[in-house]
Amino acid sequence: MDCPWNELSLAFSRTSMFPFFDIAHYLVSVMALKHQPGAVAVAWKNPLSSWFTAMLHCFGGGILSCVLLGEPPLRFLANSTNILLASSIWYIVFFCPRDLVSQGYSFLPVQLLAVGMKEVTRTWKIVGGVTHANSYYKNGWIVMIAIGWARGAGGSIITNFEQLVKGCWKPEADEWLKMSYPAKVTLLGSVIFTFQQTNHLAISRHNLMFLYTMFLVATKITMMLTETSVMPFAFFEDTLSWMLFGWQQLFSSCEKRSETNSFLSGTGSSTSKPIADASDKVHKKHTKKTKFT
Amino acid sequence: MDCPWNELSLAFSRTSMFPFFDIAHYLVSVMALKHQPGAVAVAWKNPLSSWFTAMLHCFGGGILSCVLLGEPPLRFLANSTNILLASSIWYIVFFCPRDLVSQGYSFLPVQLLAVGMKEVTRTWKIVGGVTHANSYYKNGWIVMIAIGWARGAGGSIITNFEQLVKGCWKPEADEWLKMSYPAKVTLLGSVIFTFQQTNHLAISRHNLMFLYTMFLVATKITMMLTETSVMPFAFFEDTLSWMLFGWQQLFSSCEKRSETNSFLSGTGSSTSKPIADASDKVHKKHTKKTKFT
Amino acid sequence: MDCPWNELSLAFSRTSMFPFFDIAHYLVSVMALKHQPGAVAVAWKNPLSSWFTAMLHCFGGGILSCVLLGEPPLRFLANSTNILLASSIWYIVFFCPRDLVSQGYSFLPVQLLAVGMKEVTRTWKIVGGVTHANSYYKNGWIVMIAIGWARGAGGSIITNFEQLVKGCWKPEADEWLKMSYPAKVTLLGSVIFTFQQTNHLAISRHNLMFLYTMFLVATKITMMLTETSVMPFAFFEDTLSWMLFGWQQLFSSCEKRSETNSFLSGTGSSTSKPIADASDKVHKKHTKKTKFT
Repeated sequence: MDCPWNELSLAFSRTSMFPFFDIAHYLVSVMALKHQPGAVAVAWKNPLSSWFTAMLHCFGGGILSCVLLGEPPLRFLANSTNILLASSIWYIVFFCPRDLVSQGYSFLPVQLLAVGMKEVTRTWKIVGGVTHANSYYKNGWIVMIAIGWARGAGGSIITNFEQLVKGCWKPEADEWLKMSYPAKVTLLGSVIFTFQQTNHLAISRHNLMFLYTMFLVATKITMMLTETSVMPFAFFEDTLSWMLFGWQQLFSSCEKRSETNSFLSGTGSSTSKPIADASDKVHKKHTKKTKFT
Repeated sequence: MDCPWNELSLAFSRTSMFPFFDIAHYLVSVMALKHQPGAVAVAWKNPLSSWFTAMLHCFGGGILSCVLLGEPPLRFLANSTNILLASSIWYIVFFCPRDLVSQGYSFLPVQLLAVGMKEVTRTWKIVGGVTHANSYYKNGWIVMIAIGWARGAGGSIITNFEQLVKGCWKPEADEWLKMSYPAKVTLLGSVIFTFQQTNHLAISRHNLMFLYTMFLVATKITMMLTETSVMPFAFFEDTLSWMLFGWQQLFSSCEKRSETNSFLSGTGSSTSKPIADASDKVHKKHTKKTKFT
Repeated sequence: MDCPWNELSLAFSRTSMFPFFDIAHYLVSVMALKHQPGAVAVAWKNPLSSWFTAMLHCFGGGILSCVLLGEPPLRFLANSTNILLASSIWYIVFFCPRDLVSQGYSFLPVQLLAVGMKEVTRTWKIVGGVTHANSYYKNGWIVMIAIGWARGAGGSIITNFEQLVKGCWKPEADEWLKMSYPAKVTLLGSVIFTFQQTNHLAISRHNLMFLYTMFLVATKITMMLTETSVMPFAFFEDTLSWMLFGWQQLFSSCEKRSETNSFLSGTGSSTSKPIADASDKVHKKHTKKTKFT
């Protein structure tokens, strides 16, 4: 006799995303598109272009996953039911009289419900991506992590690329220095589900899906209610980052301090140089004489 | 006993595009490339780059269709005969002594003949794309429309993308607000042939090919002779556009007028706001206080 | 009894690139990445982004070849051993205490050895690409040349594209007017090995691999030692270029001179126009009256 917890998580893992969770995902995606500057004007002047962009927002993760696996990127168009559902949502969001849908969406409880349901679909996408990649590359764990990540959070890459081609988006180099919360939490999920798939985690898939989904929904709703951008695992992330990548900065700053000290004792003036250039300086030391201004 | 009309359209549908219609298509494509600013200089300084761009102009639709269906984009290079034919045309267009080919092409009857024959190839590409997509996705009508459209008019996407990568093209956001005539007429053809493929149109394929081709050639030649950009189906396009997408603007303008009236009666001054922001205003009404300057 | 030369080239062609030649290739690629402006700062702020860029530098040619053949671009991630090897090299190059690896690499003998070994891997990639394309398209010689070229020197296209998307690279139109030395020498190798594959060259593959590799390594090391950018086959390249593409410029300059002479005898003043516009002038002669300022 299965315990109630097991039955609950099993039933949860067998829930179909169609139609309610998919509707929530499409609604949140199209509303995000609508809030972009000029999106409404584009919808009225060229509805086909607006519809296409909305489809990229709704199905971007699956498209990216197809591109990476060499499958037809247009495959999502074969699922006519979901396409019609997403198209209907696009139509009523942009063309509803008196903008009723946007007004309804502006109420916080409605937003919380829709965003919470969208986070549930994220788990399903990650799991789908990991198992699909496993069917191609048995135990190719890096591929599984990449495809799970692409399916769960890759839509923004597709939509950013479309904006780049349209000339609406000019990427700044430092944008790539920051990963968004959805990207980080999806990468974490993809790693966890890959380890579960390769039997490195002693937990069944349906239990893991339940726990991970609860984590996603709880953190997302908390962040929305408290209007904070501090991520729940920021401490672990910083610690891991320092352990793997931070200690060389420690060496470099010690070296810089000893250089500055010897310089100070030599000339009596001080220079301030950013830590980020420390390794370049070490590299150039053997090639040219350092200039002091 | 078949009627003469049926025999004519059947014989027409069995015409091979190779070599004369293909030559016309390659000639028009390469001449369009040659008229771009700086194309001749590029041909003399880096013939390989110019040749590659010419191949994208000639085979761009097929390349895009392969990309969308997950097939090798380089597949067009396997057809050595067509590649050599297109390369020869590129060579004589750019490197003919005294530029004889360009001089010959500048005569209007020659242009009309070449452009007319190129329009014939458009029908063959649309039909090829629709049937090819149908072999992948039985009754996937959205995929069939998309592939027919890509094959018939997708070349410009490939060539624009190549120019974007080369830094020669900076897309403006409003370019995407206007669809060109080839794009519109190819989309119409793709929809029609898809409905015919899925047996929703009571007309045989060869008859439809004949009628659609005659329509394409007649409208294109008329537009060239009259030097007009007004499209023949503009009226139907505007009507359909207004029916599907225009009525919300009607609601919004009524609402804006009533807002202006109440404002006028309140303060005695007037504000003018564009219709395109009307829905954004409705959305923001519940979130922040509107400022009047 | 095989001659010693044959045995040597046969043994050479059976050498495995893993691990030493692959290590050299990854080292040279990652050091090239490190020398880009801001690469070290990116590695410290977003190690994942830096790692991804390093993987594109190391495996870019294979990724491009997969994209062109419609295979999964992520396939390189399935080879976990090579990925771990390349990742380790990235890690120690960017995060080694006191930047020891960069200091070691700055010694010329170390650079020459690494670069020489990397050139050996180029031959293996070209041959791999040509044979792989031949398995898809029997005797599709254009495809074989293209895939051999993509595998051997296509990595820069992938990395430039990634920089374009990140906003770090703005391509200038005239960059496409110059092909780099690796691109030219890889194209030459791809053509030679394709002719050998289609039995148009009376030389065995292992002998050709040995000769081509010796040519690559010798020229590359010579160019590094003499710090020259003059390519060894520049004379043949210029001659071939003039034979195929240069004689029309001769016609155009003769025509321009005769136009100038007739103009001089007519008005007594002179105009100077670049040769590159000569063909545009010929084309426009029939369409509009030329203005003289």
